[in-house]
Parts: sequence; C-alpha cells; structure tokens
Amino acid sequence: MHDFIRVMVLGTGQMGSGIARLLLEKPGLKLVGVYARRKERRSLDIGPLVGLDKEVGISVSDDLETILKQTQPHIAIQATCSRVVDAEGEITTLIRHGVHVISIAEEMTFPAAGSPAFAEQINRLACSNRVAVLGTGINPGFILDLLVITLSGVCANIQSITAKRINDLSPYGPSVLMSQGVGLSPEAFQAGLENKSVVGHFGFSESIHMIATTLGWEIERIEEKKEAIVTQVRRETPFISIEPGQVAGCYHTAVAYREGKPVITLIHPQQIHPSLEGIETGDTIEIKGTPNINLSGTPEIPGGQATCALAVNMIPRVLMASPGLHTMAELPTPAAILGDVRQLVGGYKREKLHD
Amino acid sequence: MHDFIRVMVLGTGQMGSGIARLLLEKPGLKLVGVYARRKERRSLDIGPLVGLDKEVGISVSDDLETILKQTQPHIAIQATCSRVVDAEGEITTLIRHGVHVISIAEEMTFPAAGSPAFAEQINRLACSNRVAVLGTGINPGFILDLLVITLSGVCANIQSITAKRINDLSPYGPSVLMSQGVGLSPEAFQAGLENKSVVGHFGFSESIHMIATTLGWEIERIEEKKEAIVTQVRRETPFISIEPGQVAGCYHTAVAYREGKPVITLIHPQQIHPSLEGIETGDTIEIKGTPNINLSGTPEIPGGQATCALAVNMIPRVLMASPGLHTMAELPTPAAILGDVRQLVGGYKREKLHD
Repeated sequence: MHDFIRVMVLGTGQMGSGIARLLLEKPGLKLVGVYARRKERRSLDIGPLVGLDKEVGISVSDDLETILKQTQPHIAIQATCSRVVDAEGEITTLIRHGVHVISIAEEMTFPAAGSPAFAEQINRLACSNRVAVLGTGINPGFILDLLVITLSGVCANIQSITAKRINDLSPYGPSVLMSQGVGLSPEAFQAGLENKSVVGHFGFSESIHMIATTLGWEIERIEEKKEAIVTQVRRETPFISIEPGQVAGCYHTAVAYREGKPVITLIHPQQIHPSLEGIETGDTIEIKGTPNINLSGTPEIPGGQATCALAVNMIPRVLMASPGLHTMAELPTPAAILGDVRQLVGGYKREKLHD
Repeated sequence: MHDFIRVMVLGTGQMGSGIARLLLEKPGLKLVGVYARRKERRSLDIGPLVGLDKEVGISVSDDLETILKQTQPHIAIQATCSRVVDAEGEITTLIRHGVHVISIAEEMTFPAAGSPAFAEQINRLACSNRVAVLGTGINPGFILDLLVITLSGVCANIQSITAKRINDLSPYGPSVLMSQGVGLSPEAFQAGLENKSVVGHFGFSESIHMIATTLGWEIERIEEKKEAIVTQVRRETPFISIEPGQVAGCYHTAVAYREGKPVITLIHPQQIHPSLEGIETGDTIEIKGTPNINLSGTPEIPGGQATCALAVNMIPRVLMASPGLHTMAELPTPAAILGDVRQLVGGYKREKLHD
C-alpha cells in the first residue's frame, strides 16, 4: 500500500471548510495543511473552523510558500476564488512546488474560454513541473457540461442541446443573494446588471466551450440574457425577506450559435423559494438528435455539497492523469470514493503505475 | 491534419451494419475493411449490406489475417459476439497486428468480472503491443454502470444505488425475443431458465463489478432473479403475437451485497409492448447518499442506436488512451463526434500528441 495521499486545502470559506471535512473522513487521504487568504484566520485550528467539535492539530496558515515547504502535499484543492485572475498566483505557486492542483474556481473549469493565453501557459508550466491541473465544481464542471457531454455519447448526431438547472438560493448568505439581485426592486436590478453588482450565474461560457470543444462544434457567438424574477408572493429566508413586486432572483440564460442556428441553450434561474410560486427545482438535459435524449431529476443536485464532493472525488483521477491542464471532459468520469483512496489510484492500471 | 483514421468493423449483423453506416458518415474516419464470420457474406459490397442504396467499394472478407495486412487499420470495432470466450480469438489477432480494439461484446465491458485471468492476459498483450482495448455498449457499458458512476461523483457518501431500465423489445427479432422467453407459457419459461435457452439480460455482473471497483466497494455476492412477465392482454410485433397468459418477457434483477446489506440493485425487465399494460419505458438512477440523487428519462435510450453510437464515439478516446485494457470508467467520458474526428484526437493534449 502507498503512503497516505497528502492533501492541502486553500480556502476556509463554506466550500473550503466542506472540502476539509471530507478530507478528514476519507481513508487513505491525509489533510496536511490549510491555507487561508484571511489573515484573521491564521493559527486557528481547523477542527472548530470547519464545524467539528474538536481540534485536529492542523492550524491555518496565511503563508503559502512556507506551508508548502513544511507539509509537502501531493495535491492541493483551491477554494479561494472564482476567477482565473484571482486564482493564478496560488495555482502557479502550487505547480512550481510540484503539487497537483484541483481548483473550484469557476473559470478554471475551462480557462481557455476566457483566458486562452493563461490556459496555454498553465498547461506548459504543469507539463514542465510534471503535475496535473483540473478545474471542477457542480456548475460549471458537471450538470450543464460534463453530464451533457456524457449523454451525448449515445448519439450518432445532434441538432441541439438544452440543459436547465432550477435551484433554490434559500440556504445561501448575503453575498450570493446580492449577486442574483435578491431583494432589489426591478429598477435596481437593472442598475445592478449595468454596474455589475448583479452577475447571475457564473460559468455559461466555460460550460458551452467545454461542450463545443469536446463534441467538435465551432461556436460563432454566445448570447446571454439576465432577467429579474419578480415575486408575486412574500418569500423569506434567514437572511432576507421580500415582498410581492421585489426581485426573488435572476433568470439567466445563454444560447450558443453555430452556422446561424441556436445549438446549445443553457438555462439557470436562481432565486429564493421557487416552490412558493409552484416552481419545482431540478436538473434537466434534453438533446435533439439521433436518438433524442431526455433526462431529468428533482430536486436539483445540491450545489455546495456536490462541489465539495467533486473536488475530493477527483483526487485519484488527477493523481493518475498525465501532466498538464485538464478539463472534466478529458479525465475519466468522476466517481464517489467509498474505499481507501490509495486502492483507487490505478484500477487496472495500478500495476503499471508502480512500475 | 492527420491522415484519415482507418477503421475496420468485425461483424455484419444489426450492430455491425449500424456501426459501419456511422463510420461511412463521420468526417475524418475511413472505413477500410469489414470482416464477417459468415462465409456466405464473403465478397458482398458492404453498401447494400448495411442498408445503403449504393455500393461503396468495400467488400466483406472472412479472412481476418489477410484483411488486416491489406487494409492496415488503426482501430477495429468488434461486433460479432457477446462472450469473452467467443471474442478472444479476434481480439488477440487484432492486438497482435497492432490494432486498437473497441468491442461491443457484453462481457468485454468488464472482463475481469467473469474472466480475471483473460483480462490480465489481454491487458499484458495490449501493453506489449502498444494498443488500447475497450468494451462498450448501452448496457453493460453505459446506463446501468457508467452513468451511475458519473452521478456518484457528486456524492460524499453512498448507502445504496438502484438503477432501472425498462425497455421495449418490440423492434427486435426472433433470437432476442427467444432469449427473454417471449411467447412461451410460464412453464416453458421456467424450463427455458433451467436449460439456459432463456437468459434474460446479459451483463449485470459486469455492471456491478465496474461500479464496485470504481467506487471502492468490495462485493460479497450477487443475487440474480429472473421472472416471467405474464401478459394480461394480447401483444403483437412483426415477429410474434402472444395471448393473455403467455410470457411477454423477462423481469431480471440483480442485487449486490456488501457487509450483508444490499448496496447495488439493478433492475432490467425486457418485454414486448410494455405500454399495453400501462408500463412506461425509461431509465432511472437513484442514489441514497449525501446528497441523494434521482435522475430519470422516458422513453428509454434506444439500445441499438446507442450501442452503435458509443462504439464509434469512443474511437478518439481509445486512440488517445494509454496501452492496455480499459473500461468505460477509466477513459474520458464518451461524447458525440460532431466534427472531424481527427481534430478531436487531443483537445488540450493535441500538441503533446504530435510531439
């Protein structure tokens, strides 16, 4: 049996904490260090920080270089930010230290969509340092792209793809609610779109480019639309309550065109308590092709739990991957880790890995 | 741009023909040869044979060694049989000629389930000949295993998995109908189970082992059950008509146990015209875990079309794979081929491939 797989987490927010908790549970993995950007978290034991009732003997560091040298992780999970421009410094440092990287930054699921030069550069740096880099998460990274791609695999031809995810923002805190315009007047929502305080879903471009690149479609343009979901009833969460006429969330869609025709339509309305107006949450994928494919589930796969699970479950895939920058469509499909992770690093190929 | 990817097909039955038709359509692929076991198909042009209205200038051969030397394929798709013992000779020949292999033989989706020594041997032979070997198909190979595994990827923990596929055998011919006992009396169905003329679904063991191995569960035993679906109404297809009291198909289930508990339940009733008794066809996957996952679609993904598409769509995945025996869970997820296949061989890694 291998030694433990040594894992570091970057980030101590909701996602970083959830990921750290999972790492502490999974046989074969050893959480060796936690990095936080927030100075005020320095030296705190991560047990209580991630919601455990005891200390675990690992304290938070705000000095990435030092903690890397001290803890020598095999792989790190980055949960500190959403954008490539914010993620770049940490990822580059990890790669230079020879550490494999899984990032849940949305733009990292397909960085070539928004930052092709960066994607090339990270790919080269990862190759020359012999490590693999992957971006993942529920969305982008799974529902509106990987699952679509997987289902396309049974099709001989495809005319168009529509994927829809209706979720419920009620469990989320003020910053997420603000990003979807929850609680604003319709006019303030419009102003928020213009000043970019209301952003809607983050990742349509990444999902569309992952699908199109994998299937071999050349996309001409993507049209995004963001509209206020104006409530007709009172809706209330621990963080906000809104009255009829106010905004409950953002109805965000993206349509990708090829040869003048819409070929990929992604729909992702995000709001609090959609059920109060009779709207069922869920995930739906519909492919018009040979054959037609329809698959749906309700309620929606919960985003936070799923993102934490995906980040941890991809560890054996990334450890087994060739060096370089990968997408979810380029590695073997994700799978729950229900045994000792060290025994999963390999499958049929395990013996070859040990050669 | 690469030269064309040269593909051979083994088999000229319903699946082999469907695969050959797709290969003739896809840009970047070149169908270079077709092999049939049936001597009477020798020298026939494959155009009319696969349902095209013109000849295509490729004739069927029943001499595998010779056609391999003459046509020099990069990759071959085997659609001649279901069992490892039947597939072995052709696969070994292909590998020795340095040809990558995609097989739709059901047992080849996870040959280690029934023939671990053969799986080891094929893996070594493939490695030493620098080719990749894969088994695929709708089932085993996709619905009741790969898709289950993919969905498990968003789970932190799993208590149990249930997957169900209800299909309609009405389009199928006499040999498939006989294998499910369609048209028999309940007594003859029982006798058929005993003398193995009624077999039910073929591939539960492969699906269960693929799931368990990938997730890291050790399975203690698998219990299979096959029961007659006795019709209460008249049901009729082009090949058979049955009266109330006769058998419309086989209700086949498999349950895998771990630590004394049922953890994987696969349900696959196969019958003609289930809708005549109000039964809707479809595919359903249900995972009890953290979080719970439910995904379903109706009607069922059509098996024949999907198997042909999967076999062709996996070509770029197999060409990019490391040498050896692979399963669908070990290669990147399948994806429809909607562009020139040669441009799909690589993605991010294309440049490295050309190094």
